[in-house]
Amino acid sequence: MLKRLSPLLTPDLLYVLRAMGHGDEIAIVDANYPADSAGPQVVRLDGVAATDIVDAVLSVMPLDDFVPEAAWHMQPAEGASPDQPIFDDYRKLVEKHEGGKIKLSSIERFAFYERANRAYVMVASGERRLYGNIILKKGVIRPDE
Amino acid sequence: MLKRLSPLLTPDLLYVLRAMGHGDEIAIVDANYPADSAGPQVVRLDGVAATDIVDAVLSVMPLDDFVPEAAWHMQPAEGASPDQPIFDDYRKLVEKHEGGKIKLSSIERFAFYERANRAYVMVASGERRLYGNIILKKGVIRPDE
Repeated sequence: MLKRLSPLLTPDLLYVLRAMGHGDEIAIVDANYPADSAGPQVVRLDGVAATDIVDAVLSVMPLDDFVPEAAWHMQPAEGASPDQPIFDDYRKLVEKHEGGKIKLSSIERFAFYERANRAYVMVASGERRLYGNIILKKGVIRPDE
Repeated sequence: MLKRLSPLLTPDLLYVLRAMGHGDEIAIVDANYPADSAGPQVVRLDGVAATDIVDAVLSVMPLDDFVPEAAWHMQPAEGASPDQPIFDDYRKLVEKHEGGKIKLSSIERFAFYERANRAYVMVASGERRLYGNIILKKGVIRPDE
């Protein structure tokens, strides 16, 4: 482990987060998501809630404030409640780390799959809640930070 | 780059620091050191002073306080001044990050080579000052940290 860093930031996860640049996207997906066949490189964190991973990722990775949206959940399929409880957890985590500067947005389900499958990296979580998927777009660290 | 982390903590360096466990050692060596042929895996930071790398490493990696010594410089060859200016920089960096809990020690030159060449990882720096080599032993993060 390392000082000041969440133990969920594993060697593989730290590596990809640090390798990502401005505008690169990370998809953190639930335990049902077909991550391994999706295309992007996969970092596995089986057994760990996606919300805990998002908390760890946002503790070191800034979100992109050059664009109107930088964090998206997946919109549920027809018939399911459009506001799943996990979305509220995600909203609070974005608020916690970005302080109201960036809001959680959403993307229609099939557009979400398409976008997530073009991400720089996909984190396969152990999240059991349905629709527990999120895409985060990396921002910049300014020279004085 | 990542929030709260030195830009010198590259993807490769972060990976190995996070992968290291209690008691594993990292050798940060100067630009004359035969790092690539030494044996351990090598992370390259050509062009960067070893002192800057030590500062970045100690900002996230605790030193081992289970043992009497956890940081060593190389003792100069006969005829050279036994206290090179870079040793004082290393002393100050250990003090800065460990607050007097751990002191910089030294190892005879050939014993240093032997120990460095058994390290978990070697960082090849761009350090031009002679005897600019240091070995650091990783400590633990306690449950309440």
